[in-house]
Amino acid sequence: MRIAVVAPSCVLKLEAAEAVQAIVAERGDCELVIHPQCFLSDGHFAGPDEARLGALRQVMADPGFDAVWFARGGYGSNRIAEAALADLPEAARGKLYLGYSDAGFLQAGFHKAGLDVAWGPMPQDVVRAGGAAAINRAIDWLVRRDRSALEPALDGPSMAFNLTVLSNLLGTSLEPDFTGVDLLVEDVGEHLYRIDRSMFHVTASPGIQKVRRLRLGRISDVLPNDPDFGSDEVAIVEQWCVRSGIAFGGRADIGHDSQNRVVPFPSENR
Amino acid sequence: MRIAVVAPSCVLKLEAAEAVQAIVAERGDCELVIHPQCFLSDGHFAGPDEARLGALRQVMADPGFDAVWFARGGYGSNRIAEAALADLPEAARGKLYLGYSDAGFLQAGFHKAGLDVAWGPMPQDVVRAGGAAAINRAIDWLVRRDRSALEPALDGPSMAFNLTVLSNLLGTSLEPDFTGVDLLVEDVGEHLYRIDRSMFHVTASPGIQKVRRLRLGRISDVLPNDPDFGSDEVAIVEQWCVRSGIAFGGRADIGHDSQNRVVPFPSENR
Repeated sequence: MRIAVVAPSCVLKLEAAEAVQAIVAERGDCELVIHPQCFLSDGHFAGPDEARLGALRQVMADPGFDAVWFARGGYGSNRIAEAALADLPEAARGKLYLGYSDAGFLQAGFHKAGLDVAWGPMPQDVVRAGGAAAINRAIDWLVRRDRSALEPALDGPSMAFNLTVLSNLLGTSLEPDFTGVDLLVEDVGEHLYRIDRSMFHVTASPGIQKVRRLRLGRISDVLPNDPDFGSDEVAIVEQWCVRSGIAFGGRADIGHDSQNRVVPFPSENR
Repeated sequence: MRIAVVAPSCVLKLEAAEAVQAIVAERGDCELVIHPQCFLSDGHFAGPDEARLGALRQVMADPGFDAVWFARGGYGSNRIAEAALADLPEAARGKLYLGYSDAGFLQAGFHKAGLDVAWGPMPQDVVRAGGAAAINRAIDWLVRRDRSALEPALDGPSMAFNLTVLSNLLGTSLEPDFTGVDLLVEDVGEHLYRIDRSMFHVTASPGIQKVRRLRLGRISDVLPNDPDFGSDEVAIVEQWCVRSGIAFGGRADIGHDSQNRVVPFPSENR
């Protein structure tokens, strides 16, 4: 099992790359090829759009890789997502694309294009408290589809997205078909008024209203609301589900933390 | 000329209300009726949804008011916008609805429903440096349609929105028809990566791609980007215009400040 790591959004820290390679060496069940593009820096991004797109398309087209693992989130994968899908090489199929957060722009478009996508921990997560467990969970899924890596309450076709990323891809060419899926959402570093606003936007979308259920992952590192918002994230999400006629499926074990689980998107290969 | 003030989003400060009434008294050319709902407080909002909706519908239905002036932005008008438009009373027509920022959710839906809407300063702006000039500019427009209040480069049908608000209303029932208009956008208190992400989302929207031109107001109180984003707001907006095939119409004299000008939305009454 050979796994390519590229960074379509922000820079992978060198110490994170080394720590993940140490875990891989100890496991001995896969080879991890970290593309040098991961360490490029151009303002906010891990290199200019052309470099990030070039590295991504290179590993997508390489039949020597069984999986592409997105190095980390941040922001920027939306800037190259449509171009990454142009003239899709045959070798891009039959690979698994793993990541979360900002990678959701790519994952939405890749899933729509018929590629095999899963939500799950990324290499940069190794620096979190308990991060080694997150890395091993991701590799357990990549290498042997270990079902203990999965979000424990998955029940039928499911997708997972960062709520803010999801809000920003609706109506674009990346928006996939949500019909009949359980939609898991989470967020990090937002004020509760922004969570409420994103839930308004997302649940008002005709495409989203076709989901089977909406499930709520963790809303972490909430920024202070002045004044206090007046309700919590569960009340917010339940209320918008009621208002939009979407069934609320309760909590989900995903989030921007080392407990974050794997959510494979619906696939023709399973 | 009788003008009603209601607060569909956040609380109007009492000192702001008093300062605006003092300006109105000195002018002597209009009567300002500040609805007591403006001073209610319920968590983030100027009272519960029902109270904000009730006050708004009350003044919409009252033929004794020539205009409805939104007290301030913040967040929350989206929560009552659709209900505000249900079974529209006849008296709601023939009034001007003035405001900006979060009021954009209402203004989008109201314009779509055929009501007369304009972007412009709000009562809470009186507390800004130079705020009295903003209040007088707004009232000059409300009372006598003084063209010196207008954004100076308006050229044909135009609309103005806060960029983040616009992003969050696309695809909802509030989204108006943008065909052929000059679209003016501005924002406040965002990181540049969020401006870039919102521009991606907005310019990828098929509805937005029907505008004649996009013009950029001020992007103020930009939050620090770590690392430095690598370009500025003009470069960001121009780039997304190029990528989406939307003509960039240069800068616009609107923003979250006391210089903010009036932008009347296209109307059958003009």
